[in-house]
Amino acid sequence: MAPTGLWLIGARGSVATTAVTGLLALRSGVVPPVGCVSAQQEFRDVPLPEWDEIRVGGHDIVDTPLEKRAELLTDSGVIPHRVFEAVRPTLSEVEREIRPGYHPATHSGTQADAARTLTDDITAFARRHGLARVVVVNVSSTEPVFPDLPEHDDLGALEAAMAVPGRTVLPPSSVAAYAAVRAGCPFVDFTPSTGLRLPALRELARRGGIPYAGSDGKTGETLVRSTLAPLFTTRALTVRSWAGTNLLGGGDGLTLADSEHAGSKLASKGRGLSTLLGQEVTAPLHIDNVPDLGEQKIAWDHVSFEGFLGARMSMQFTWTGYDSSLAAPLVLDLTRFAAAAQAAGEAGPLAPLAFFFKDPMGSTEHRLAEQFATLSSWAGTL
Amino acid sequence: MAPTGLWLIGARGSVATTAVTGLLALRSGVVPPVGCVSAQQEFRDVPLPEWDEIRVGGHDIVDTPLEKRAELLTDSGVIPHRVFEAVRPTLSEVEREIRPGYHPATHSGTQADAARTLTDDITAFARRHGLARVVVVNVSSTEPVFPDLPEHDDLGALEAAMAVPGRTVLPPSSVAAYAAVRAGCPFVDFTPSTGLRLPALRELARRGGIPYAGSDGKTGETLVRSTLAPLFTTRALTVRSWAGTNLLGGGDGLTLADSEHAGSKLASKGRGLSTLLGQEVTAPLHIDNVPDLGEQKIAWDHVSFEGFLGARMSMQFTWTGYDSSLAAPLVLDLTRFAAAAQAAGEAGPLAPLAFFFKDPMGSTEHRLAEQFATLSSWAGTL
Amino acid sequence: MAPTGLWLIGARGSVATTAVTGLLALRSGVVPPVGCVSAQQEFRDVPLPEWDEIRVGGHDIVDTPLEKRAELLTDSGVIPHRVFEAVRPTLSEVEREIRPGYHPATHSGTQADAARTLTDDITAFARRHGLARVVVVNVSSTEPVFPDLPEHDDLGALEAAMAVPGRTVLPPSSVAAYAAVRAGCPFVDFTPSTGLRLPALRELARRGGIPYAGSDGKTGETLVRSTLAPLFTTRALTVRSWAGTNLLGGGDGLTLADSEHAGSKLASKGRGLSTLLGQEVTAPLHIDNVPDLGEQKIAWDHVSFEGFLGARMSMQFTWTGYDSSLAAPLVLDLTRFAAAAQAAGEAGPLAPLAFFFKDPMGSTEHRLAEQFATLSSWAGTL
Amino acid sequence: MAPTGLWLIGARGSVATTAVTGLLALRSGVVPPVGCVSAQQEFRDVPLPEWDEIRVGGHDIVDTPLEKRAELLTDSGVIPHRVFEAVRPTLSEVEREIRPGYHPATHSGTQADAARTLTDDITAFARRHGLARVVVVNVSSTEPVFPDLPEHDDLGALEAAMAVPGRTVLPPSSVAAYAAVRAGCPFVDFTPSTGLRLPALRELARRGGIPYAGSDGKTGETLVRSTLAPLFTTRALTVRSWAGTNLLGGGDGLTLADSEHAGSKLASKGRGLSTLLGQEVTAPLHIDNVPDLGEQKIAWDHVSFEGFLGARMSMQFTWTGYDSSLAAPLVLDLTRFAAAAQAAGEAGPLAPLAFFFKDPMGSTEHRLAEQFATLSSWAGTL
Repeated sequence: MAPTGLWLIGARGSVATTAVTGLLALRSGVVPPVGCVSAQQEFRDVPLPEWDEIRVGGHDIVDTPLEKRAELLTDSGVIPHRVFEAVRPTLSEVEREIRPGYHPATHSGTQADAARTLTDDITAFARRHGLARVVVVNVSSTEPVFPDLPEHDDLGALEAAMAVPGRTVLPPSSVAAYAAVRAGCPFVDFTPSTGLRLPALRELARRGGIPYAGSDGKTGETLVRSTLAPLFTTRALTVRSWAGTNLLGGGDGLTLADSEHAGSKLASKGRGLSTLLGQEVTAPLHIDNVPDLGEQKIAWDHVSFEGFLGARMSMQFTWTGYDSSLAAPLVLDLTRFAAAAQAAGEAGPLAPLAFFFKDPMGSTEHRLAEQFATLSSWAGTL
Repeated sequence: MAPTGLWLIGARGSVATTAVTGLLALRSGVVPPVGCVSAQQEFRDVPLPEWDEIRVGGHDIVDTPLEKRAELLTDSGVIPHRVFEAVRPTLSEVEREIRPGYHPATHSGTQADAARTLTDDITAFARRHGLARVVVVNVSSTEPVFPDLPEHDDLGALEAAMAVPGRTVLPPSSVAAYAAVRAGCPFVDFTPSTGLRLPALRELARRGGIPYAGSDGKTGETLVRSTLAPLFTTRALTVRSWAGTNLLGGGDGLTLADSEHAGSKLASKGRGLSTLLGQEVTAPLHIDNVPDLGEQKIAWDHVSFEGFLGARMSMQFTWTGYDSSLAAPLVLDLTRFAAAAQAAGEAGPLAPLAFFFKDPMGSTEHRLAEQFATLSSWAGTL
Repeated sequence: MAPTGLWLIGARGSVATTAVTGLLALRSGVVPPVGCVSAQQEFRDVPLPEWDEIRVGGHDIVDTPLEKRAELLTDSGVIPHRVFEAVRPTLSEVEREIRPGYHPATHSGTQADAARTLTDDITAFARRHGLARVVVVNVSSTEPVFPDLPEHDDLGALEAAMAVPGRTVLPPSSVAAYAAVRAGCPFVDFTPSTGLRLPALRELARRGGIPYAGSDGKTGETLVRSTLAPLFTTRALTVRSWAGTNLLGGGDGLTLADSEHAGSKLASKGRGLSTLLGQEVTAPLHIDNVPDLGEQKIAWDHVSFEGFLGARMSMQFTWTGYDSSLAAPLVLDLTRFAAAAQAAGEAGPLAPLAFFFKDPMGSTEHRLAEQFATLSSWAGTL
Repeated sequence: MAPTGLWLIGARGSVATTAVTGLLALRSGVVPPVGCVSAQQEFRDVPLPEWDEIRVGGHDIVDTPLEKRAELLTDSGVIPHRVFEAVRPTLSEVEREIRPGYHPATHSGTQADAARTLTDDITAFARRHGLARVVVVNVSSTEPVFPDLPEHDDLGALEAAMAVPGRTVLPPSSVAAYAAVRAGCPFVDFTPSTGLRLPALRELARRGGIPYAGSDGKTGETLVRSTLAPLFTTRALTVRSWAGTNLLGGGDGLTLADSEHAGSKLASKGRGLSTLLGQEVTAPLHIDNVPDLGEQKIAWDHVSFEGFLGARMSMQFTWTGYDSSLAAPLVLDLTRFAAAAQAAGEAGPLAPLAFFFKDPMGSTEHRLAEQFATLSSWAGTL
């Protein structure tokens, strides 16, 4: 396929750093593509960009160099020493392509100005590398819930408000989404933040014929839930309660255990469960910050269900994963699929990518197996 | 649908007793059909026998009355008191239809004689109740592995050997299967015993145009495994090991913890896992007899897997179920589906019923979601 | 020993009903004293009241008859059918001794009046049955945290305030404690409510030479924690985090998942852990209301610890218990020990009873094994 | 204290390598003594050899250099990179002190000759470094069960048999124990192998006034069991079954999953449980070889217990530890305590060291808390 760009919002974060390190490692052949959905047999004949056809750049509001982040991830078990040593020299290639991201606290101009700068950064990146297209993927920290504003429903009103000095009419994720669409780029939201999920922004994407996908990558507890729930429904067993606890270290734990940020995350997790089960159930859910876990994420779920003649039974599981290890290959997959979709002329929400998300745009299907079947047959049409 | 018979091999066992109690309770409307796959919306338009169109009889080698067994199951939490009290008077209706089963240790004639008696019992039952057809379901205790004999490959040789006094050329489950087919009945094997799985017996079924299904009902650990395994394969995660431990009380624990009987059970469980994962993995598996658990069955599985860049992750689950509560509604489902299949003219192994079995005959599909999709579309054709 | 009274605050609750049912069952010999600490060999020679020397009465603000409550507990697995049937006729004996409890919402007089009535109820009960002494045990629902007031520090000021119409200077548990002490009765607080834990009330007890004990019975997660924590400390392993989640059904889940009531509970649980570990650790803790669990209580704890050379290891446990089954025998134990203590002339906080409590009065020892050793040697001196 | 030797049988194994690496790291101050029992406050005034007063040597039958083993343990998470780098240069100091161990398959002379060589190695080591005493600790692989022979009961007969060419009257661990005692050294058996546990060898130790301790270091599942079991006994709860599964990688998994070697291990684990509970319980126990786990050891235990009025409850735990990380500091602790014991004139089985062992010699106490109390007060007398 033609040279393709991957532009990461939050390019110095754990997920981004792991994705970049992994891409460089895959390109040089030092690791097999374990965890990469798009590298499976099923997708062999789909016209996807190869590892060495993907160039990476991005925005971030922090300055820690990529190499330092990769080193920390090596200490915490996400990146093996030998992989880090192998890709270390080439990390600077990506480092050079990271530009300052937008945040209202550090930006003095209007949001319209900010968006224009972001768009220019992406366009320049594409030109510099002769890229056929650039996929923008948001992997920055989850934002606090942003209030609904009337401007969100009307593109004209929104753009007018963005041009007013001192007004913050959009959260940073939506400014990034706006900038991506303005640059003609597919936008993928791997986080539960607002991003493109505003009528005005969707309208903008519609007019530009831009494909987009999201939101909130399905990498742990919800991944297991969307696999397990059909066991109960297809067997006609009645789930009585499904309780969950998530222990997170790293910056993620800090951000999400704070109730304001967790709002969007918990809502996104909750929506899926009742859809999966076809009913509302008691489903208490917690996210706790446990710093000593580092990059690890531990989820415990307890499912209480009723069977024949009212028999009371239960199941519990503990999932112990590295969030970045699970998310990073999906970022590469999404880049490849979104690029192929745009090349094939697709526009609007990419519903067949529901397989990757907790809260899929354009789809109400949450069952993992059905999502994979849809993904496979769609990819065959590209 | 026309009046249909359900003939249970092992009619006084826990699974059979729960199925009978449940059928009577469903018929009188004191419980909803929780756990009954065939009672779901998807199958509303399939011509299945209704609860009050099913008559039950069976064979067993033990004498404990059904009412006594139902009482024990009530004490152990499988059957609620109020359900037991509601169906108690009607249990005798089924009790009257239970005939002595065949076992080489207690039978003095030839196996041909034995089979003839079994066939006659079933035929008389059908005639007595004016049944359009009878489905024979084996829910007796798992047998020890039976040696391969040359006669198993040739129907003529087999029947000749069955007529030789003193020869035990077939295990009891296969004598039962032979008798069922001779009576023109669909045969469903809910156990991992030999049953119909001999070339000579399959040939007999083929000639008679008899449908059959099996084997080994998928009710606990394997049910979860066949749901979970696709999480790893569709996400391209490499499973490194999948260890399992099963704690069983009741007679089942006693039978299966004994290594000779467990042989067929463990083989049946193992076959599925490697098919599901598309590779061989380290998969130690144990079945322990823990009498104090009574009817409960507790399974613990530990899955170790590798993700992106070799990251080491794991998942574990504990399943706490009542085996009889999980199996009994499936026995009713299988009766309904097998009857409808025969009515629709189907013969040979009923591959679309793979959804119900650990070791499905006529199918290599072990993934639960795919099995359910197949079942649904097949049922639509009946 | 001499005839002894057990006066239950919250006499119609699950714990009380189970304790009463159990006492009647023990008296008639239909069950062995499983779960009764005081019935063990170690305490054979301690002068404790025998089962048939204990008479029960109590206060409650609800009206549901004891027999009805016992029936519900039978349905939920706490009380076996045969035990319920055996003691049913004798429940009315206790039923007759239950008097209306105090609650500010339903009481119109002063708190001084209320306390006097409670005292009179207890005194009349003692006289009616010719009891040598009465132990008052609080097993009512956990109260919301009550604000600190200056009157709590001074007995004179407190009693003056109690006599002011319309003033609610004490929470119900403290009114009950006051009434008990005024009646000359040992007071045992099995809940985390305020009870006797106010300087003014302790002063009253001191003047009267009254022994007391509490608080918050150690029956589940905390019981396990106080057993396990010494593993880490005696082996010099550094606990990094200890996260816990509690799923509760029944009224308890409803009361405690409400953050205001949970305040005292969570504080009581937290105090112990840091004392046990000799350091502060990250210890997120949740209590969720999961009604379908009924009387069951499920706790999951995840402990992350560091060993030699910084090796990262972990342990997790799931506890599945019936709270009332675990608490009820301890209520009987505490009655026996408190009665013996008063008979032996002990007064003030009974520190050797720390074994029974999450938040022991008069003791900073939280390690279960050490607590048992202390209990045993103390009992030997009675 | 005076310069002390630690002589490791199996000096190139995982436990030995971790202990040596750790000792060097402690000596240079790059790590704190986490996991070292003897470094706790309680033992501050006990005259124990300091880290820099301990010299290490040993026997092994394999040749892989210590540095190579340490590197492998670094890759598998037991030793941090920075610790490995810090001690790497000093590993050769210990490397030079490792001599070929004894194994019947590679030794052609008599067992008497073999033992003499071993004794000479230890004596020369002590002389070379001017050591006041040398503690011999067996950390080699668990042996298969060795048959009982009449010579084991009589020292004269044993020594006569050892001198017969071609006779293998002792397993290697016992030859090592014999050699240690002949060298006047305390012998500590950290494995379940026979070692000194033969009447003839104990007699030899008795005559020489040699202290010894063992056997089978308590580092994982059994450690938890000996902590938890008293919860049930002190609370008068009846344990009905206690099932366990152990998943082991590394050489240990390979050795122990083989039923012959596991024999001694399982017996050693089982003995403790029934002693702890004061009764026999159903206790199925498995050890599985799961190579991908590497140095990790995962144990799952399920405890089913009965409470008041027969209520059925349960508890389960999963322990995830690095066996070598847990064992290595105890090897250092045992060296220090055994040296101090010999210096204080103690002889025979060191019962107060029961705290460290699954199957303690000279003690029937298995409860961890009681063992620690005994250890503490004994250490105070040294």
